[in-house]
Amino acid sequence: MPKPEKHVFVCTQDRPRWHPRPSCSAKNCVEVAEEFYKHLQDKQLFDKVQVTTAGCLGPCLKGPTVLVYPEGVMYGSVKKEDVATIFDEHLQNDKPVDRLMMSKEFWG
Amino acid sequence: MPKPEKHVFVCTQDRPRWHPRPSCSAKNCVEVAEEFYKHLQDKQLFDKVQVTTAGCLGPCLKGPTVLVYPEGVMYGSVKKEDVATIFDEHLQNDKPVDRLMMSKEFWG
Repeated sequence: MPKPEKHVFVCTQDRPRWHPRPSCSAKNCVEVAEEFYKHLQDKQLFDKVQVTTAGCLGPCLKGPTVLVYPEGVMYGSVKKEDVATIFDEHLQNDKPVDRLMMSKEFWG
Repeated sequence: MPKPEKHVFVCTQDRPRWHPRPSCSAKNCVEVAEEFYKHLQDKQLFDKVQVTTAGCLGPCLKGPTVLVYPEGVMYGSVKKEDVATIFDEHLQNDKPVDRLMMSKEFWG
């Protein structure tokens, strides 16, 4: 398999409900991950983009979190509806989506 | 939290025993991940290195797999005993460990 041009990590960390820290899983990260896989399939971009689920990426308060390497751009509070924008603008046209980026307080 | 200089993803994918594809989990990836966390803790390198577990990274036949960004270097068949080398040579001194790298057939 080729090394991807863009590698997307989607946090799918779960936690017990009573845990003091929120989790991306409690904020619908699975449907975010599924939406990335759907776009990957629809666009047949397997040679260019790789999507991988991940454990905790850090800023749980601002989840669901999505991290794109090699540039190391992290997105926060990502909704299913945001995935098309990230895919089209960032993954396919190399223009990270400013309005969805994690603030520097949490990643920078 | 700071954006890390090196972000290590350790595959911890599991699969049922009857599944035709091997998994990193069946090849002791959890102790590899634990060893990375142990070194991170011992060296107190939280500002420079981040370690995250990940779902399937692709080359299951050559697991356990470990992927380091931003350079996108993948290691294969990683053993607990290899972690100190990867940590010292690559993560702390920016010299990827050639002998542990995934072959270009699987990642290149």
